[in-house]
Amino acid sequence: MKRHVDDELKKLKDKLFKMGLLVEEALDHAMAALFERDSDKAQAVLKRDQEVNLYEIEIDELGHELIALYQPAAVDLRLITMTLKITNDLERMGDQAVNIAEKVIIINQEPPLKSFQEEFRKMADVASQMVRDSLNAFMEKDHEKAKVILEEDDVMDGINDQVYENIQKMLGEHPENIRVGLSLIMISHNLERVADLATNIAEDVIYLKRGIDVRHHIRERRENKI
Amino acid sequence: MKRHVDDELKKLKDKLFKMGLLVEEALDHAMAALFERDSDKAQAVLKRDQEVNLYEIEIDELGHELIALYQPAAVDLRLITMTLKITNDLERMGDQAVNIAEKVIIINQEPPLKSFQEEFRKMADVASQMVRDSLNAFMEKDHEKAKVILEEDDVMDGINDQVYENIQKMLGEHPENIRVGLSLIMISHNLERVADLATNIAEDVIYLKRGIDVRHHIRERRENKI
Repeated sequence: MKRHVDDELKKLKDKLFKMGLLVEEALDHAMAALFERDSDKAQAVLKRDQEVNLYEIEIDELGHELIALYQPAAVDLRLITMTLKITNDLERMGDQAVNIAEKVIIINQEPPLKSFQEEFRKMADVASQMVRDSLNAFMEKDHEKAKVILEEDDVMDGINDQVYENIQKMLGEHPENIRVGLSLIMISHNLERVADLATNIAEDVIYLKRGIDVRHHIRERRENKI
Repeated sequence: MKRHVDDELKKLKDKLFKMGLLVEEALDHAMAALFERDSDKAQAVLKRDQEVNLYEIEIDELGHELIALYQPAAVDLRLITMTLKITNDLERMGDQAVNIAEKVIIINQEPPLKSFQEEFRKMADVASQMVRDSLNAFMEKDHEKAKVILEEDDVMDGINDQVYENIQKMLGEHPENIRVGLSLIMISHNLERVADLATNIAEDVIYLKRGIDVRHHIRERRENKI
């Protein structure tokens, strides 16, 4: 017999999935606003952020109702508290999209600077992919998929460091580009933060799978070390 | 009669408090490493981050045990899930302390740049205060204290914007300071992130107090708007 709690958990996951799509869209639009020099598109990202925030509150409320009503044990409980944590991560990714959109509006007021297009397209792709992959890994409780995300995060860190170095060098030689250069560094940093948040989700999925063993291991280390 | 669950909740809160002290100390040491040009102190912050991470795992585990064992309803349940969320926020503040320490090590390799000392001392003070205040507001369920934090966050945003503008201007005139200037901008940004995380905690405290009314209000808005 199918448990009623399973239907409710599915509803919770569906909402989380929709929230994830919204965040992914916000990121894609913020970056498209950069590539297409389209500040209206950036403005639209700012306006729609409230929708992401409302999802967080809705999911938070539903999650608490589920715990109170069904008093789930072990795995179901952890699924729900993880969902609450992930909505928080998604909401913060949405904030990063807003930060990017704000910087894009500044950049679009200045003459175009083509030299970093390729790196930023790559970063945007990796970030979007990581958001999608981390949510899928959670939905499918697939810790192999989750491990791939940790590798993607290394790729992202590498590009971010490179972009930082390149723009630092460029600004040393062309200080007149300071406004655009600083804004690009902040956008690169924002994308790297999105990747970090997706990595948090992936780590939770791995943790959920390995569960007790890992925790005992850590507890032992803590008792020995601190 | 005192409930056993109250003892357990107190234990949870004590751990959270200790974790908060560690994070505050990490921030203070990272900023002292900047003011005193002491890279050994910055290195020590990097080394001790693992302690903060271990607290997060311990509190997370204890929180889940409490929910599974006592099946707490309404307010107690929300206190526990909020504690889990706050440990996550604290862990991220710890990461910001690490980011600051890394930039301090870069800055200390370059000639000193005195001009922004005052703003950074102010930001460091406000950030530390906000971490402390937000935890106290949570411990005492004091939503008046929580509201003060929202004002402190506005102060922080103001200083951060000012620092960003000033360093941008300085770098336009003195591009030779690019390495130090960019690192200072990132530190300012990190401190502003700490303030944001403390503000999240404060918002949760206000939300816990106002509870159902706010949520209904938001749900109505959502049904009308989206």
